[in-house]
Amino acid sequence: MVSSLSLSGCALQRELIGATATDINGKFYQGVLGSNRVSKQFLVSRSICSFSDGAQTRFFSNGKSLRWDCGGNRLLRNGVHCSVLSTENHHSSFAIGQKFQLDDVIEAQQFDRDILSAIFQVAREMEEIEKNSPGSQVLKGYLMATLFYEPSTRTRLSFESAMKRLGGEVLTTENAREFSSAAKGETLEDTIRTVEGYSDIIVMRHFEGGAAKRAAATAGIPVINAGDGPGQHPTQALLDVYTIEREIGRLDGIRVGLVGDLANGRTVRSLAYLLSKYQDVKIYFVSPEVVKMKDDIKDYLKSKGVKWEESVDLMEVASKCDVVYQTRIQKERFGERIDLYEEARGKYIVDRNVLGAMQKHAVVMHPLPRLDEITVEVDGDPRAAYFRQAKNGLYIRMALLKLLLVGW
Amino acid sequence: MVSSLSLSGCALQRELIGATATDINGKFYQGVLGSNRVSKQFLVSRSICSFSDGAQTRFFSNGKSLRWDCGGNRLLRNGVHCSVLSTENHHSSFAIGQKFQLDDVIEAQQFDRDILSAIFQVAREMEEIEKNSPGSQVLKGYLMATLFYEPSTRTRLSFESAMKRLGGEVLTTENAREFSSAAKGETLEDTIRTVEGYSDIIVMRHFEGGAAKRAAATAGIPVINAGDGPGQHPTQALLDVYTIEREIGRLDGIRVGLVGDLANGRTVRSLAYLLSKYQDVKIYFVSPEVVKMKDDIKDYLKSKGVKWEESVDLMEVASKCDVVYQTRIQKERFGERIDLYEEARGKYIVDRNVLGAMQKHAVVMHPLPRLDEITVEVDGDPRAAYFRQAKNGLYIRMALLKLLLVGW
Amino acid sequence: MVSSLSLSGCALQRELIGATATDINGKFYQGVLGSNRVSKQFLVSRSICSFSDGAQTRFFSNGKSLRWDCGGNRLLRNGVHCSVLSTENHHSSFAIGQKFQLDDVIEAQQFDRDILSAIFQVAREMEEIEKNSPGSQVLKGYLMATLFYEPSTRTRLSFESAMKRLGGEVLTTENAREFSSAAKGETLEDTIRTVEGYSDIIVMRHFEGGAAKRAAATAGIPVINAGDGPGQHPTQALLDVYTIEREIGRLDGIRVGLVGDLANGRTVRSLAYLLSKYQDVKIYFVSPEVVKMKDDIKDYLKSKGVKWEESVDLMEVASKCDVVYQTRIQKERFGERIDLYEEARGKYIVDRNVLGAMQKHAVVMHPLPRLDEITVEVDGDPRAAYFRQAKNGLYIRMALLKLLLVGW
Repeated sequence: MVSSLSLSGCALQRELIGATATDINGKFYQGVLGSNRVSKQFLVSRSICSFSDGAQTRFFSNGKSLRWDCGGNRLLRNGVHCSVLSTENHHSSFAIGQKFQLDDVIEAQQFDRDILSAIFQVAREMEEIEKNSPGSQVLKGYLMATLFYEPSTRTRLSFESAMKRLGGEVLTTENAREFSSAAKGETLEDTIRTVEGYSDIIVMRHFEGGAAKRAAATAGIPVINAGDGPGQHPTQALLDVYTIEREIGRLDGIRVGLVGDLANGRTVRSLAYLLSKYQDVKIYFVSPEVVKMKDDIKDYLKSKGVKWEESVDLMEVASKCDVVYQTRIQKERFGERIDLYEEARGKYIVDRNVLGAMQKHAVVMHPLPRLDEITVEVDGDPRAAYFRQAKNGLYIRMALLKLLLVGW
Repeated sequence: MVSSLSLSGCALQRELIGATATDINGKFYQGVLGSNRVSKQFLVSRSICSFSDGAQTRFFSNGKSLRWDCGGNRLLRNGVHCSVLSTENHHSSFAIGQKFQLDDVIEAQQFDRDILSAIFQVAREMEEIEKNSPGSQVLKGYLMATLFYEPSTRTRLSFESAMKRLGGEVLTTENAREFSSAAKGETLEDTIRTVEGYSDIIVMRHFEGGAAKRAAATAGIPVINAGDGPGQHPTQALLDVYTIEREIGRLDGIRVGLVGDLANGRTVRSLAYLLSKYQDVKIYFVSPEVVKMKDDIKDYLKSKGVKWEESVDLMEVASKCDVVYQTRIQKERFGERIDLYEEARGKYIVDRNVLGAMQKHAVVMHPLPRLDEITVEVDGDPRAAYFRQAKNGLYIRMALLKLLLVGW
Repeated sequence: MVSSLSLSGCALQRELIGATATDINGKFYQGVLGSNRVSKQFLVSRSICSFSDGAQTRFFSNGKSLRWDCGGNRLLRNGVHCSVLSTENHHSSFAIGQKFQLDDVIEAQQFDRDILSAIFQVAREMEEIEKNSPGSQVLKGYLMATLFYEPSTRTRLSFESAMKRLGGEVLTTENAREFSSAAKGETLEDTIRTVEGYSDIIVMRHFEGGAAKRAAATAGIPVINAGDGPGQHPTQALLDVYTIEREIGRLDGIRVGLVGDLANGRTVRSLAYLLSKYQDVKIYFVSPEVVKMKDDIKDYLKSKGVKWEESVDLMEVASKCDVVYQTRIQKERFGERIDLYEEARGKYIVDRNVLGAMQKHAVVMHPLPRLDEITVEVDGDPRAAYFRQAKNGLYIRMALLKLLLVGW
């Protein structure tokens, strides 16, 4: 473990005696690092080890030390220097070589305005890498496991593309629910403990809310939630906000119309949540009666001073907004009431007329897949931003993978 | 987009004002390249942009410019020089560094004799690379998405091996039909627009005829048809012709016996079609009555001056031919008439006796999988070419991937 | 084929006339190497070709020569020097650059004590590579096909991680049983002959005992058995023995308690078999009556002088053993007798009490997945070795891939 580090400039012995470590729960460990016996003591959870000269290593349960911050701004992986991008961050804690503030990406609530802004800057750099540096080696030697308990090819391909665009490698399981071990009754925790031994980061999609949090609590390597049931899908929330900033140029003072299935869509709920971090935002809710935005989000926005109103007039909302965010009415939520579904579905369509009402600088967004809630005639208009939005998912995921694995 | 290019020797500004572009349908675009707004105008379809000094860039809808031909014979990908193989082509339009004539590979009809010959030369070079350059970097930094709407592991592995043998990377979806978005009703076009954002080339297998053409019309990146329903499977057709040339040494003047299921087999139909491009070819059809070659192909061959005859005597045909191309009787086409299937199936078997009748230089081919229409005793004979034929699929696919991504 | 070799120091012509070769069955070939016609003669099986100066090439049926040992200690792949690790082996036939003694890994019986010891030394080096050399290139340019006829994500990811940790690439098929060709009636042999054309090594999981042996007999490239039905799973057997040596420090003189389903578990059977190669070993069998160890293994151990006894007292056995090897009672073997299953299942649980009886240096092992036959309270104890055991599977598989592809 530690014996693998050899860092000139740091007074670090290859065999450390009496080093101490504190785990994420604040538990304190003491032992002879570098021996087999100590690595066992670190098995249960990830640990940060601090040395007298201020250097820090994050030890992982699989016996690895994925990064080494000596003096706070050098990044090494097991003694090997990690090349990082040259960035200029205003915020010193986001300076090059600093450790990323998050150990895992589990829910939208983890992100504040400052860190969102810093992540978006990295995402912009990722756009440059994707277009100009096809042989990027930023994550060379790193292995991502995509552990998908329900199929979601779009999200999976997006993460895998992100990893490979940065020179990393991928282990894939398209349908982990048939993971023979899960089928035999193995717990998620045991599966995670096995998979973390084979990879450096886990991207997990699960059918149960809270599964990502459980995985992260177990894993000694970073976990990214790629959607857990009715729960969170934080990378979608981030790419939505990133797309608004990219397309409109700012997040403060924007007018956003959320249209369609506001009751069931986790994307619009997360988006409303994240928009509340910005100033002078106004949100319009436009939805069929049966799928109206729920009170918890309305109350939350009110508590944060975000103005909102409900409207039944899509044309009028479209004329006022910077962003018309359309969503699919989710048939699967209507059960046998196909009549209600059909009624809700046809109510608010973004078509050429709606486009006509929109301002020149405004854009149409959609989390995809879409059925006919945006007509195909809209696709050719420069303001149709939904495929660019999908592409932004790539940049956001590249940024998060880079940040979690090698830091700022 | 354009701002990523920096090419000495070409009078090209990083921010171009007033550049013009023509898309594949001849539509004309004018705009300020390099700005976000213009990239939107290019969203709908791929475009070739010509500049006053004769240089050309192919812009892709995902904001990339995959190649840059300056003076017609330099290849750059987003400003990075692409290493290409040294080849000697007689035909100047197939010279090193030239753009490949095809944007996509959709059907056998796209290939004429000259381009087949040039592709086969590249395939020969691919054999050398596969055997002698295990760490080839020809396609390093390129990402292929295999979008298979029906499973075909043989074809999928062949394409993925081809990409990886050239140093490229792969995103895989073994069963895109369960692609959650397709299941939710997303159109093929929308799926393609998402996937093209994550990759540089799409290899698609689909259960519907014409699907590949639709995908290519949508995609801003090259699409290769890996079989679309009862329609086309052009890489199989190419590898068949390549195998004949490799094994027999020529294509003009050959005698080919097509045996087995000639009514349903798309491979024999495509092969007959491609052979009509060569001189003094003679084709023998040997098939059970219920699965005879259809009139459209017979008429086509007649119109091209290709001699053909039908025969019920496999031994006699075998003794005359350079190639005995056996095929599987496709049980799935007989429905409940198992009796007809069983009768057809046992009728023409290539066994030791047929081998005995064949000439020393002749070969047995088969598109695989085979059941018992070629007995296993034939496998050990040097004239059993079917596994070499399968291997040639690798070289043909390596060649096409290379040509579509970095040109001649 | 041979024409690709250019080896200074070896009097080797690029076109050899009259070279001779002997295949694995001792059959003798003579021909003009380097011509297309000879490569056909080598089609059926792998061959070792000896030249007058003592150099050897192993020719593969796909036209490749994966290694070249000139003077017995140089390793080339098709003329390209393979970088190998620096190792110090006592046994001269395990010296760096020597060919690995096995062509395939099919069953535990292939391994004797000396080769196990040498493999374990390579596995230790693999631990170092995995931790300290994230960009290892030991297997750069090599392609592994994982041909899984039944899903086993744990084993598959372990092999794929092993390959990628060494810089190799992977072609995956998660469910080859739906391999359209297998579904259409293609034989395993034909599938192998196709897949060997696309890859350098095949890792196969199959639902039928003996399938791996059949694949190896057909393939011209190495095959690793990743489990074939009720038959063998040799890499699991190796990682179990490796784990005991890693955890306890020795294999001679150890005391091992095998607990749980001893009748159906192939892992405990293989482990008992391999332990018989070491001296002064004692094995305790602790199992419910319905799943007792079968007589064939008991008789085998007796014939090898290995002491064993059966016990019903897990606490007493735990107190005496170096290793408590727990296994899952396999519900699927009980059919409708759920009552018998439930009775067997609850009988021997490793919990805090059993831990309390165990010695300080002893460890608990388990092949995973586990249900509740080890309680989760045990996980935090340093003596819980089962997740380290799973991780050791990675190192063993890295070692075997390296040895089969580039030798010692």
